[in-house]
Amino acid sequence: MEKLRIGIAGLGRLGQRHAENLAHRVPNAQLVAACSPVEQELEWARKTLGVAHCYAEYAALLAHPGLDAVFLVTPTSLHAQQIIAALQAGKHVFCEKPLSLDLEDCLKVEAEAARHPHLQVMIGFVRRFDASYRDAAYKIRAGMIGKPYLVRSQTMDLNDPGGFFVRFAASSGGIFLDCSVHDIDLARWLLDSPAPARVTATGTTVIHHGLREFGDVDNGLATLEFADGSMASFMASRTMAHGHETLTEVFGTKGRLTIGGGAQLNRVEMADHNGISHECTPDFYSRFSDAFLLEAQEFVAAALGQGKLSLKLHDATEATRVGLAMARSMRDRQAVDLL
Amino acid sequence: MEKLRIGIAGLGRLGQRHAENLAHRVPNAQLVAACSPVEQELEWARKTLGVAHCYAEYAALLAHPGLDAVFLVTPTSLHAQQIIAALQAGKHVFCEKPLSLDLEDCLKVEAEAARHPHLQVMIGFVRRFDASYRDAAYKIRAGMIGKPYLVRSQTMDLNDPGGFFVRFAASSGGIFLDCSVHDIDLARWLLDSPAPARVTATGTTVIHHGLREFGDVDNGLATLEFADGSMASFMASRTMAHGHETLTEVFGTKGRLTIGGGAQLNRVEMADHNGISHECTPDFYSRFSDAFLLEAQEFVAAALGQGKLSLKLHDATEATRVGLAMARSMRDRQAVDLL
Amino acid sequence: MEKLRIGIAGLGRLGQRHAENLAHRVPNAQLVAACSPVEQELEWARKTLGVAHCYAEYAALLAHPGLDAVFLVTPTSLHAQQIIAALQAGKHVFCEKPLSLDLEDCLKVEAEAARHPHLQVMIGFVRRFDASYRDAAYKIRAGMIGKPYLVRSQTMDLNDPGGFFVRFAASSGGIFLDCSVHDIDLARWLLDSPAPARVTATGTTVIHHGLREFGDVDNGLATLEFADGSMASFMASRTMAHGHETLTEVFGTKGRLTIGGGAQLNRVEMADHNGISHECTPDFYSRFSDAFLLEAQEFVAAALGQGKLSLKLHDATEATRVGLAMARSMRDRQAVDLL
Amino acid sequence: MEKLRIGIAGLGRLGQRHAENLAHRVPNAQLVAACSPVEQELEWARKTLGVAHCYAEYAALLAHPGLDAVFLVTPTSLHAQQIIAALQAGKHVFCEKPLSLDLEDCLKVEAEAARHPHLQVMIGFVRRFDASYRDAAYKIRAGMIGKPYLVRSQTMDLNDPGGFFVRFAASSGGIFLDCSVHDIDLARWLLDSPAPARVTATGTTVIHHGLREFGDVDNGLATLEFADGSMASFMASRTMAHGHETLTEVFGTKGRLTIGGGAQLNRVEMADHNGISHECTPDFYSRFSDAFLLEAQEFVAAALGQGKLSLKLHDATEATRVGLAMARSMRDRQAVDLL
Repeated sequence: MEKLRIGIAGLGRLGQRHAENLAHRVPNAQLVAACSPVEQELEWARKTLGVAHCYAEYAALLAHPGLDAVFLVTPTSLHAQQIIAALQAGKHVFCEKPLSLDLEDCLKVEAEAARHPHLQVMIGFVRRFDASYRDAAYKIRAGMIGKPYLVRSQTMDLNDPGGFFVRFAASSGGIFLDCSVHDIDLARWLLDSPAPARVTATGTTVIHHGLREFGDVDNGLATLEFADGSMASFMASRTMAHGHETLTEVFGTKGRLTIGGGAQLNRVEMADHNGISHECTPDFYSRFSDAFLLEAQEFVAAALGQGKLSLKLHDATEATRVGLAMARSMRDRQAVDLL
Repeated sequence: MEKLRIGIAGLGRLGQRHAENLAHRVPNAQLVAACSPVEQELEWARKTLGVAHCYAEYAALLAHPGLDAVFLVTPTSLHAQQIIAALQAGKHVFCEKPLSLDLEDCLKVEAEAARHPHLQVMIGFVRRFDASYRDAAYKIRAGMIGKPYLVRSQTMDLNDPGGFFVRFAASSGGIFLDCSVHDIDLARWLLDSPAPARVTATGTTVIHHGLREFGDVDNGLATLEFADGSMASFMASRTMAHGHETLTEVFGTKGRLTIGGGAQLNRVEMADHNGISHECTPDFYSRFSDAFLLEAQEFVAAALGQGKLSLKLHDATEATRVGLAMARSMRDRQAVDLL
Repeated sequence: MEKLRIGIAGLGRLGQRHAENLAHRVPNAQLVAACSPVEQELEWARKTLGVAHCYAEYAALLAHPGLDAVFLVTPTSLHAQQIIAALQAGKHVFCEKPLSLDLEDCLKVEAEAARHPHLQVMIGFVRRFDASYRDAAYKIRAGMIGKPYLVRSQTMDLNDPGGFFVRFAASSGGIFLDCSVHDIDLARWLLDSPAPARVTATGTTVIHHGLREFGDVDNGLATLEFADGSMASFMASRTMAHGHETLTEVFGTKGRLTIGGGAQLNRVEMADHNGISHECTPDFYSRFSDAFLLEAQEFVAAALGQGKLSLKLHDATEATRVGLAMARSMRDRQAVDLL
Repeated sequence: MEKLRIGIAGLGRLGQRHAENLAHRVPNAQLVAACSPVEQELEWARKTLGVAHCYAEYAALLAHPGLDAVFLVTPTSLHAQQIIAALQAGKHVFCEKPLSLDLEDCLKVEAEAARHPHLQVMIGFVRRFDASYRDAAYKIRAGMIGKPYLVRSQTMDLNDPGGFFVRFAASSGGIFLDCSVHDIDLARWLLDSPAPARVTATGTTVIHHGLREFGDVDNGLATLEFADGSMASFMASRTMAHGHETLTEVFGTKGRLTIGGGAQLNRVEMADHNGISHECTPDFYSRFSDAFLLEAQEFVAAALGQGKLSLKLHDATEATRVGLAMARSMRDRQAVDLL
């Protein structure tokens, strides 16, 4: 069996998950190298996954002999340059979302990728690989809800009393680029890629007041109008008490699909003096772990020439473009036109 | 508008609910008299409902001039003789379930009723009047689940730490005659009255150990086979932590109907650190309050000659007969044949 | 028992429901008169409800001797003048929502009401009387979700292929004043009446294209910011395939309450070749019939001096004010400030 | 990394699933050989999984040099002798449930296993490895439902119009040994292994009448009493229209856990003219695919000396013993004592 030789850059929490998938659960992938500025992360890769070649520098990773592809799970600010460098080194690239917080950089990456048509570039909009979202997309394409005209999508995170994302706020791009970027991509995908026309957004801060100095909020609302008359409504929150809840509704002229209602952790239900209850997924990984694996499998297959990517690099640019418009609309307190 | 003049006997908790319905919510009913051995219950009827004529003795109630009908919400041991006396006095009779714990008495009541074909007699199998059970019955009759062949029905009561029913155990007939009698009636109704053929039952006592001296249990299981090959499975409990849960499933060759799953108190759902939860109906009245009203309305209409009863006196006899067989099966630890 | 003598004006579909409640289900109400320009509606009131006094003219109804109160279920354009006339005639007034589509008229009604402090005036924001909404409000006031900061509320109507509301569009005020006005009132109520600060709204028309000539849409989205930083997000639709779905979520710092999820018609669930399903409430009346009754009971009790109204006339003015701002925001494609 | 060298016997539908897991998803397993009397199944193993050594005879598989363990996914009638042969050849054994339809054979296997204490033997009661069942077991052990006293468990299969299991009926042992054996094992596990005391069972045939000649049914009911007073109630069916539904309820003195209610296929919900619905898992594999993997991982780890098996061989004997008693109770129409 032909195997894709992959090097991973970034071994934080999510990077480790990707690394484990590549090492154990993608039959035609071979995790041959890893790169991190943090020595103990490399030590983890060596000991736990048996990764033989570990590098502190990204350039060294790219130079690893025989490498076919890189997985980038690095800070967003590095994405564009790292993708471009990888392409120029002749590597296929998987990169975590968002592509970039800078629209120019997105376009530069698109341009560079266009120069290497034989190389695959995928930005990890993981929800597109979730079995439930896929089923919904299939049903929409099959006409089961008539013509879809409205998407309501929300990304609601379990409150983190430690407020990790407050420290991360300076570089996250704010709640819309960090969280809603997924929902924006879903709306475009599920509505069959209409042109974004106009955005309004607002937000409020109810727990994590430290966000204010970054112009960010812990709860955001946004509305997106498309040129064809379809619409999308978004909510994002950092302050849920019950868990991570990703919920999307697609309204069509003959029906509505809801994906993710209830946020069930598993199939257990408790009936006690509090009534009847179920636990909820605590974080995005517990919700989308299978999708992270499918995403890696699709990327690897495409890079091996055994399939096609189901999303385009330009989709990532559009998600950034709309997310940036939301941030601006909230800041300036006025609608932002996108046409 | 012609009105049915009604006297109620028994003003305990459920009796008061019936009295309120008759006084305020059944337009063509007139609650003209009440009877109770408890003076303060009569006082309540006078003050709260404006019932003008209150009696300590049932015979006096029957003798009340112009009375058309009686509502019996009295101890089960009195049902048979009170129904017979009412019929002999020319009154229509509504009587709470069960008809009697004694099969002979059931038959005597049936015989007396047969002598007064112009008088209506209804035993209050209230679930038959619940909108959800009615919808299910309609769907079954319409063939929506194919041929029904199996009913699973359970009556699970919220644990009462005070253990009222332990003190009541001597006269309740036990868990099958007190609780499952409803489920037995539902099974017969929803399966279109096949002949009961054979019963097995067992039980256990996990909280209310005082039941043991009466040969009763706080959790019971029973199986009923019908002559046509259809079956029913029953559960009854006194020890639920979450509420009163009446749940019935009807399995047919093309589908299954479930009535009462979730036991929702209302349409409110809470998402908090415990996950997502809803509260449950605490007791049968919070579950079936609308059905108690519809039941009274049907009885009143039938007594006024404006409609027909949807259940027969013999249905109540059958429920008692099967319930008694369950109690015997549990006691003797062997199957009881009913054919 | 003292009874409130009531005359009803307007006997259309909803008017008939109110009339039935007053005639049969509100013990201390007496429906003594009715008024409608449609003779067959009056005939219905006479025959079905036994209303003795029927008038074609509103003035004649007001002049009916001994009348204590009026119920107005008339076209919105008549509300203000009819309320004012009733107050001047010394009658308590219940009026269906919305109070008016004209803010000036709302204020005139408030002013007139202030001149008659002994008269009760209630605008029928029926959802405030729903058991589930009341339970949610109670839980919020009890602190069970911490500080509430965001309401998401939607009113989604079953598609009516006949498009009744298209013919009604000229006088309805549009989707926000016809549907969202309820959600606006709920948001204010559940957030404890913060001051509305700013509104943005948009919409699309996907089935009922005839709405366009009235500047109306069949699906609308709106966002409302309050002066204290709390927010509300609204959806309204005329095009649902599954039923009438009124759903409200209240997000607080410690939890979220959802009211109305699932839109269950009853407690029946079907498992068949389509999977597991339940039917949905087809219209607002099947969802809120109990609330319409409680609303009438509260009004009657207050008019008899036996209780207080739980909502103020000014609440109705605020709902109209915000609804008008939404309509303007959609029309002008810009935010509308409300402070 | 040390790897367990495994040979699989039996490559039918479920065998193929096991083989894929061993080949790709259990990092420390190596699928080195396969055995099947069906040449095209071996061909599949060679081509799809790259299994180098394929045998037509089980004896040849056992003789494969360096083999550490066997996976038996063969007909039940072969289990006992194949396990014994494997143990005598010094191999660890994983075997699909049920252990055997013959109690004597179960005991012989137990005796042989006792002679090889260093060899692991696991019977695949896969539900014990499902994340939801594990969560429930954890919660029970943690006391969250008080003392558990009643398990209700059902295995309901999607109707197979082709009736595969009718052809399989002669060797399946009947519905209780084929389906309920899982529920029996769950009940024992979740109640902490009380001693089975008494069984009653019955059944009916509503679609697959061909079962009758084998004394089998397509819908069965059974009750199991334990020596400590706890109880279990079982349902099994071959005739569901909506899917495969495995549902277990555990009742305790302080609460109830339900595992598997709703049988959701995924997180998608459809709202259309039929109401609101979701699709259901079509078969046991779509429900338990993750558990099949965890089961293999636990077995491999234990065989490598890196963990302990969480279930005992004797558990499988007990499941067979109770299942046989159910079959006998149904046939003889009387209770069967097990003490």
